[in-house]
Amino acid sequence: MIGAGQLARMSVAPAQALGIGLRILAASDDESAAQVARDVRIGSHDDMAAVVAAAEGVAVVTFDHEHVPPAILRELRAHGVAVRPDPAALAHAQDKVTLRRALAAIDVPQPDWIVASAASDVSTFGDSHRWPVVMKLSRGGYDGRGVWVMDDIEAVTALMATVALVPGAEWLVEEFVPFERELAAQVARSPHGQAVAYPIVQTTQVNGICVEVIAPAPDLSPADAAAAQQLALRIAGEFGVTGMLAVELFQATDGRVLVNELAMRPHNSGHWTIDGAVTSQFENHLRAVLDLPLGSPHATSRYAVMVNVLGGDHPDLYAAFKHVMARDPGLHVHLYGKVVRPGRKVGHVTVVGNDLEDLLERARHAAGYLTGTITE
Amino acid sequence: MIGAGQLARMSVAPAQALGIGLRILAASDDESAAQVARDVRIGSHDDMAAVVAAAEGVAVVTFDHEHVPPAILRELRAHGVAVRPDPAALAHAQDKVTLRRALAAIDVPQPDWIVASAASDVSTFGDSHRWPVVMKLSRGGYDGRGVWVMDDIEAVTALMATVALVPGAEWLVEEFVPFERELAAQVARSPHGQAVAYPIVQTTQVNGICVEVIAPAPDLSPADAAAAQQLALRIAGEFGVTGMLAVELFQATDGRVLVNELAMRPHNSGHWTIDGAVTSQFENHLRAVLDLPLGSPHATSRYAVMVNVLGGDHPDLYAAFKHVMARDPGLHVHLYGKVVRPGRKVGHVTVVGNDLEDLLERARHAAGYLTGTITE
Repeated sequence: MIGAGQLARMSVAPAQALGIGLRILAASDDESAAQVARDVRIGSHDDMAAVVAAAEGVAVVTFDHEHVPPAILRELRAHGVAVRPDPAALAHAQDKVTLRRALAAIDVPQPDWIVASAASDVSTFGDSHRWPVVMKLSRGGYDGRGVWVMDDIEAVTALMATVALVPGAEWLVEEFVPFERELAAQVARSPHGQAVAYPIVQTTQVNGICVEVIAPAPDLSPADAAAAQQLALRIAGEFGVTGMLAVELFQATDGRVLVNELAMRPHNSGHWTIDGAVTSQFENHLRAVLDLPLGSPHATSRYAVMVNVLGGDHPDLYAAFKHVMARDPGLHVHLYGKVVRPGRKVGHVTVVGNDLEDLLERARHAAGYLTGTITE
Repeated sequence: MIGAGQLARMSVAPAQALGIGLRILAASDDESAAQVARDVRIGSHDDMAAVVAAAEGVAVVTFDHEHVPPAILRELRAHGVAVRPDPAALAHAQDKVTLRRALAAIDVPQPDWIVASAASDVSTFGDSHRWPVVMKLSRGGYDGRGVWVMDDIEAVTALMATVALVPGAEWLVEEFVPFERELAAQVARSPHGQAVAYPIVQTTQVNGICVEVIAPAPDLSPADAAAAQQLALRIAGEFGVTGMLAVELFQATDGRVLVNELAMRPHNSGHWTIDGAVTSQFENHLRAVLDLPLGSPHATSRYAVMVNVLGGDHPDLYAAFKHVMARDPGLHVHLYGKVVRPGRKVGHVTVVGNDLEDLLERARHAAGYLTGTITE
């Protein structure tokens, strides 16, 4: 697995359980996954030689993130290494314009969009739709970085004058979609075409960072849930995805369900599956990329609530350990071994059960206490 | 953790999730836990210098097995290292005669027993109770080793002439208890005295090796289950156990519930808790020895069935992987990375659900297929 963040870290446990050797390519030996994996190579994901050397002798290469340059992926394939997801599939998660074009080609509902080469393009788009508009760098962003909401042409002009495009990147402009809520659909798909769909979840983002997930999404009709699962299965099949695919969706106020973004790896919207599904997203990602039969994606209880622990004022998360554990013996705590910085994802908590209000109170309290925003 | 077998291996995942540093002392770097842990020291558990060096800088030392000599445990304490369970508590799991005397002192029901120094002692015991009798080495046995069922005085004489006692060991002679079934009670207890009790399980041993566990034990009355939990909690408190305690019980045909043996560590009878309880025995062992509040021991579904995968004729367990996973998407497979040898514990499978007969069929089939005793 290339990349050693928390997604790689949480992949280590199912690899151990299945007896699968998992090598991690980490930028440094104190990265989240490098702290806990036995087989760690140090090197950068954009260093051709480092990636090729790390892939020596492995059956399959997969990813903790989407940032490995396509040229390196092609080189791996030239060396006879199975790359999963395939570079052609992964391109849809690496480049937002590629994604928009591909979704349009298969008639998947999405926000209206254009590629802008000048502020005047954005102005025309904003005037013909409505303001604000959303501007995105086609490449390189994550957790809300590389995304801006623009209220008027002056702001657009200033942004485009300030932010330099990296080679190959473009300005993607999208309609601002007023939504009731955000949903996410996750599926696992294997090279031989088996696929399973997890329950549709409701996600809450603040400043572009996922903070809370409820599984399944409350008050979503069975028909709408099935339609969202089918949509994700169709995208996975059409794009040839192997491994986990997360489809982030807007449930718009006008009733449309629109695709926002894709991720082709385990995803924050599926962390609840460790403690709340028969087979976690991390195990099914490994099974899928290894072309093993997939495990059941079914939930093990009526509801699961996951709340991210974002870095706050308290550098020592462990000071709060005893309190949150003593308050709630049913709490599942997951910490990533990361240095605490404000707003950084440093862990998450999950609770499962029947009473959604109770679960929300417990998970939010625990995350808030670990973060330091709640002190009693 | 001293020792790098499968119990240490399965402790790695909850340590990662909680962000707790876990160092393993392994005899070699290909041992089960050494394959997957990041922080591994190589050395023998009975090498004073190796154990003391491995404990350098850790907050707490705990165990994968009971074989660390008491002198080494005392030396660790002399170095200011917290040893959990405490050497005085651990003595009850290290020496079967010590256990029998201590259980007698607190009036816990157990098989009748004597310490024999000569065959004539066994003869007298057998004639006054009934034959066969059970003979055990007070120290050093596990998984049925060091235990013999003796039908007559000739067999006893031959055994005592053949097996040399290691220094400090004695011959323990026990009545042979005809039992309906075997049960196990597991509790976690922390230094500050918090304790939680897992559901009472039914265990099946073949040739002294645990092969199957059903949680909770079917058709055990709530009163009998509560009594068994109370018994284990009382033993943990009286003996000052910290960490997990497993109490192996006979449910005798004459109605008695008798204590067979103890283990003070995660135990085979609790492997089901990884996939079937809110908090696994491995996580609660870590929490307990670190004096963190304990997690809920409750089951997450009506039944869990765990079947051990014992080494058979097939050296490559992975050949059967696709079959067992494809047949049963709800199966939880746990492999220990051990070289397959006949009868050796090399993994286990767990299934959870409501229909016990269905779970038994599925778990037995998967384990049998991985082992090679079932081929279709």
